[in-house]
Amino acid sequence: MRLELMTSPAVAAYLAERPGIVIPIGATEQHGPDGLIGTDHLCPEAIARRFGARDGVIVAPTLAYGMSQFHLGFAGSISLRPSTLAALIQDLVASLAATGFTRIYFLNGHGGNLAPLRAAIQEFYAARSFAGVTEPCPVHCRVRSWWELDGVDALRKALYGAAEGYHVTPSEIALTLASHPDHIAETDRPAPPPLADMILHGGDNYYDAADFRRRFPDGRVVSDASLATRQHGEDLLALAVDDLAKDFFGFCRSV
Amino acid sequence: MRLELMTSPAVAAYLAERPGIVIPIGATEQHGPDGLIGTDHLCPEAIARRFGARDGVIVAPTLAYGMSQFHLGFAGSISLRPSTLAALIQDLVASLAATGFTRIYFLNGHGGNLAPLRAAIQEFYAARSFAGVTEPCPVHCRVRSWWELDGVDALRKALYGAAEGYHVTPSEIALTLASHPDHIAETDRPAPPPLADMILHGGDNYYDAADFRRRFPDGRVVSDASLATRQHGEDLLALAVDDLAKDFFGFCRSV
Amino acid sequence: MRLELMTSPAVAAYLAERPGIVIPIGATEQHGPDGLIGTDHLCPEAIARRFGARDGVIVAPTLAYGMSQFHLGFAGSISLRPSTLAALIQDLVASLAATGFTRIYFLNGHGGNLAPLRAAIQEFYAARSFAGVTEPCPVHCRVRSWWELDGVDALRKALYGAAEGYHVTPSEIALTLASHPDHIAETDRPAPPPLADMILHGGDNYYDAADFRRRFPDGRVVSDASLATRQHGEDLLALAVDDLAKDFFGFCRSV
Amino acid sequence: MRLELMTSPAVAAYLAERPGIVIPIGATEQHGPDGLIGTDHLCPEAIARRFGARDGVIVAPTLAYGMSQFHLGFAGSISLRPSTLAALIQDLVASLAATGFTRIYFLNGHGGNLAPLRAAIQEFYAARSFAGVTEPCPVHCRVRSWWELDGVDALRKALYGAAEGYHVTPSEIALTLASHPDHIAETDRPAPPPLADMILHGGDNYYDAADFRRRFPDGRVVSDASLATRQHGEDLLALAVDDLAKDFFGFCRSV
Amino acid sequence: MRLELMTSPAVAAYLAERPGIVIPIGATEQHGPDGLIGTDHLCPEAIARRFGARDGVIVAPTLAYGMSQFHLGFAGSISLRPSTLAALIQDLVASLAATGFTRIYFLNGHGGNLAPLRAAIQEFYAARSFAGVTEPCPVHCRVRSWWELDGVDALRKALYGAAEGYHVTPSEIALTLASHPDHIAETDRPAPPPLADMILHGGDNYYDAADFRRRFPDGRVVSDASLATRQHGEDLLALAVDDLAKDFFGFCRSV
Amino acid sequence: MRLELMTSPAVAAYLAERPGIVIPIGATEQHGPDGLIGTDHLCPEAIARRFGARDGVIVAPTLAYGMSQFHLGFAGSISLRPSTLAALIQDLVASLAATGFTRIYFLNGHGGNLAPLRAAIQEFYAARSFAGVTEPCPVHCRVRSWWELDGVDALRKALYGAAEGYHVTPSEIALTLASHPDHIAETDRPAPPPLADMILHGGDNYYDAADFRRRFPDGRVVSDASLATRQHGEDLLALAVDDLAKDFFGFCRSV
Ligand code: NI
Ligand code: NI
Ligand code: NI
Ligand code: NI
Ligand code: NI
Ligand code: NI
Repeated sequence: MRLELMTSPAVAAYLAERPGIVIPIGATEQHGPDGLIGTDHLCPEAIARRFGARDGVIVAPTLAYGMSQFHLGFAGSISLRPSTLAALIQDLVASLAATGFTRIYFLNGHGGNLAPLRAAIQEFYAARSFAGVTEPCPVHCRVRSWWELDGVDALRKALYGAAEGYHVTPSEIALTLASHPDHIAETDRPAPPPLADMILHGGDNYYDAADFRRRFPDGRVVSDASLATRQHGEDLLALAVDDLAKDFFGFCRSV
Repeated sequence: MRLELMTSPAVAAYLAERPGIVIPIGATEQHGPDGLIGTDHLCPEAIARRFGARDGVIVAPTLAYGMSQFHLGFAGSISLRPSTLAALIQDLVASLAATGFTRIYFLNGHGGNLAPLRAAIQEFYAARSFAGVTEPCPVHCRVRSWWELDGVDALRKALYGAAEGYHVTPSEIALTLASHPDHIAETDRPAPPPLADMILHGGDNYYDAADFRRRFPDGRVVSDASLATRQHGEDLLALAVDDLAKDFFGFCRSV
Repeated sequence: MRLELMTSPAVAAYLAERPGIVIPIGATEQHGPDGLIGTDHLCPEAIARRFGARDGVIVAPTLAYGMSQFHLGFAGSISLRPSTLAALIQDLVASLAATGFTRIYFLNGHGGNLAPLRAAIQEFYAARSFAGVTEPCPVHCRVRSWWELDGVDALRKALYGAAEGYHVTPSEIALTLASHPDHIAETDRPAPPPLADMILHGGDNYYDAADFRRRFPDGRVVSDASLATRQHGEDLLALAVDDLAKDFFGFCRSV
Repeated sequence: MRLELMTSPAVAAYLAERPGIVIPIGATEQHGPDGLIGTDHLCPEAIARRFGARDGVIVAPTLAYGMSQFHLGFAGSISLRPSTLAALIQDLVASLAATGFTRIYFLNGHGGNLAPLRAAIQEFYAARSFAGVTEPCPVHCRVRSWWELDGVDALRKALYGAAEGYHVTPSEIALTLASHPDHIAETDRPAPPPLADMILHGGDNYYDAADFRRRFPDGRVVSDASLATRQHGEDLLALAVDDLAKDFFGFCRSV
Repeated sequence: MRLELMTSPAVAAYLAERPGIVIPIGATEQHGPDGLIGTDHLCPEAIARRFGARDGVIVAPTLAYGMSQFHLGFAGSISLRPSTLAALIQDLVASLAATGFTRIYFLNGHGGNLAPLRAAIQEFYAARSFAGVTEPCPVHCRVRSWWELDGVDALRKALYGAAEGYHVTPSEIALTLASHPDHIAETDRPAPPPLADMILHGGDNYYDAADFRRRFPDGRVVSDASLATRQHGEDLLALAVDDLAKDFFGFCRSV
Repeated sequence: MRLELMTSPAVAAYLAERPGIVIPIGATEQHGPDGLIGTDHLCPEAIARRFGARDGVIVAPTLAYGMSQFHLGFAGSISLRPSTLAALIQDLVASLAATGFTRIYFLNGHGGNLAPLRAAIQEFYAARSFAGVTEPCPVHCRVRSWWELDGVDALRKALYGAAEGYHVTPSEIALTLASHPDHIAETDRPAPPPLADMILHGGDNYYDAADFRRRFPDGRVVSDASLATRQHGEDLLALAVDDLAKDFFGFCRSV
């Protein structure tokens, strides 16, 4: 049930039954020599839409643009500043709250979104807290990246181990092989550059775009997406839909 | 050629040939008793994607959320504040400029977006102008709403006249009948409420959501979408693609 | 009745009778070799003050600075960023609303102001809409540029046709000849540069200041202000005052 | 020499000779039962324009709106938020810097403007300092309130002593008697309310509008404007023009 | 070596030898019935200052205020909005970059700070990336919470297991017992409320202040700080200093 | 009574008795060849903490970072932009208001903070005033710099006269000699540079960092801190505590 393909009265009827909505959020950024630029939003979109259609849950239009500043050194990458992404999230949450949703679930597909996304949700609540409102806010938000869902996480570790890496991961490439088979080839995908060609940074963070390009000249970060297969993608997708269903409905029931 | 389904090297190759990109921008807001909530972004998306596929032009992921604050009184409407939309646009333009695009074309599907969109583009240029840069900015932006393209505008006036109205117009409904035939019925669509049931405002502007709902209780504004047919939509779509081609390539050639 | 020349008790008495106020808004920017830098705010100021004095309507102090970033390549131009102008407008509207005005009419004299002005008004309403207020906002805003008032528009087209152009128009020069006869000469004004000296842009938008200066080296945009006469200005001013009266009082009565 | 009544080429010629400009800045706020709402901007405007005309110095359009939030409890008061005023000031300074002015003098008429005005100027410089620019900024800003100019300050203390008070001061009323004799009566102005009717606050600051109105029910703050005469105003105005000349030209010469 | 107790020439001399600085960052928020309100900033401050003194590393003044909006329902809690904290961090990083530091290490003591802190650092880099700077930024930032340092993490899990909980943890109470022995009693600290008195939320996030207070009426979140001892604190502090030394110097050497 | 060393229940008990809190605010900026970088926050911190301990008044954690953009040309200086400092102040005031404080006293140690601090407080009140709240805000804020307290001001003028200067003043150096005797030597402090080596600016304001460094190459501004003694510092500190007590309790009692 894609929100954009429903009518307003149908949404009103849904809200009488269910409190929740899923918002896929990702990025539009380089994914190495053969990954799709939209990988990070196509993955959560595919999972959320399959889940929404199967279980009768509303899925909002995908947030295709995310916080990808460190990828701006590669053609076709588009980024929002963290503060812009945060403003966007606050407005979505406030809109959904104004029209009656009380369980808002962000299914994320890009690690760089997490800090602005969480900051935005806290900023939304802060307005109430500073104003000293004594009634708890009925609107709850939840953020999950698709790869941290239980079954998905177990499978991707089992399939790829350290080759999963940090960017252009085989699991996300597998997922796009399943969801967009016409746009990415299953075979003859390039092997990853040797680790020796990368200047690893000292932790889990990225700096600016020029620094990223210096460290990872072809855009991939310690991952070997040549391991991905379409069948892996189908399996990951099926697990993700099941995991999401469990997590989403639990969230909807929580008080 | 949807950007999200391309690889970064493919975009780099494109940029060696062509300077331009099309960004569909719309809204996610109530469209009366039977219009699709996504109408305003589904229309420019359909036009842009058909054009991009036909003529080999890159189309960015659709901006599905727009400035729809006056629709927040109806279930399923989602709005950005004007300042948020403006920040979003500035970041997109700056990203595209950073990675080499110099002709950025926004194909718009929602009137309420125009002011924030234009303000944002001027804010982008203002940074250069305040800094006293004496080299003209190589990046040009253009904004067009699909209904003002020449052929489209002539046809919708010929087909519907005053019944075109201002919101939930027969032309946009016709377009979604063509682009999303499975999600909206061509027949038995409800007749518009009598004009006498509306409290018309004194101009071309909208006030807050409660005021909008008071004036237009079922969400439609002086339009009769029951006139729309799928064939109208096909005709409008075909004209729009031709018009867009002419306008976009002229823009790309302009100095 | 200029607000700045009234006392607060007199304003309170006025508000018991009338709901509305007129705010002239323009710009401070180059107007070619012989136009006044203040042309864009002097015109709506002259119209609004003559109307206010004649019909007993309060006129606020003129907003002399507007969104003129593309004129910053010429000495004496001053610009606000779009976001600054928007903040300014929001505060004026909120102040007037707080002290009891419910019909706020902006009489505009500069095209570049329209997008930020309209965005600001929507941002003002958005606060209410996001908060889910169900009582319609009693405060209404209206924006009109003086040249689009019916009688004025007809006369300027009749007098100048295509020579009206886009910047340093004969109609605005005529108006300043009438309103500020000591500061601009009626005769011997320079002929416009040949069209061939201009690099026309591909639409209705401007880019950065360096680009503007490149296209329009002496600051005028496809207009022939040498056609303007003081009598034209008197006629335009008289029509504008009548038009404004009709439009303003209609707005005050609207629900 | 009012900027708005000059042409751009005339400003360019001026800049070849002189580096400086004066910007009158004030407020639009209640001034008790008989003071003009525009008093705070009419005073610096009168001084600056008389000085500019006499000594051939450019005076920018008056900033008529200031930071007057604590006056919003009285009809006709209009305020900018401090952050809006600061944004406005930054844009003016940046514009003037971009077109060649290097000595920018704010002649202020409202105490509430000082903090935002000074904060804005520091924000302007901060951009350079954070960027580590090692060339000193050639643009200097100066802020003076007209009543602190030497001769003016001495005379107002001599004339009124403690009756000068803090708001609706006899000196500013005297100045408007001189500058706008048709709009304020020299005789029969109301005596101030007894001090006993005021709840004085514990310092030099104001709180919110409701608090101000509670403390100072008729809008005047410990001042006796009934002492003002037109002749006082003429004397103050003449002194102010001389003081401003000395201070402005010293500023222009400073390195 | 506390920055505030050094002279500027001494800092200049240090920068010739070492590139890095440590910034303790925490919060000022309720810590249940007997925890210190400053716990979250006192802990990283104690660790950083002991490390700085021992190993000759500059430690900046502690950021004592953090993002604690969900604690505002308890007396003495003070919060920054996420956007304010982000602005603060950006200015610190930009200042340190401007004066020559290239390795900036945030030692964090409050989980709620992480999202705004990381968003701020990305916003700092985004300015460069959007501008298309092709030289990698020489300034690197690193964020670590003291409890995730290797040795500390192992010890706290060994000591407390599940009783560590999420807020008012025994490890942080132990640390303050060691660092501020005069301000918190080692004995007779209250037992935690029964788990049954808490309404656990469905994940790792907090909502508004009223919701937090409803769930956790005495301010503690699933932790048993009565297990903490001063000796634990001394051990944790010693491990933390060693861990920090290793991590900080590795960061300083990284390229 | 340092807030960070109290428990939340203890603060709640305090609030039943007393309405007020003191917040020391200063800066972290170069203080010439031998002054401590933290001088501007160490001074108000020392005064406030001695007062708080003596008279049982809560003192918040010190705001160690202030608006010091013009010092960024010297190693170790850290600055907030004026707008960041203002946001910080607003959040502190709003937090304290939300948890029950109604008299908020800022004891300041850096002149550059005053404009942003005052602007922030007015912005806090403006929200209420724009909203038209008719109940006076119960929360009052007060700003005082320690050197303007009556007794302190008299003594520093008596001790140093013109040698007090504007930055690295003997009075602040004396205060740190008393409060931090281990970190600054009482003897052999360098004589000030000859006045002839300074390019004095034309007033009471500073421009950008490069300009400051050009005017004041060693960082001191027309002051002779070699006059300071520890005994002076002890005397100033004692007077300051007494002055603060009088001023703070008067503020707490004010209506
Ligand atoms: Ni990815
Ligand atoms: Ni529509
Ligand atoms: Ni004009
Ligand atoms: Ni006044
Ligand atoms: Ni804690
Ligand atoms: Ni100092």
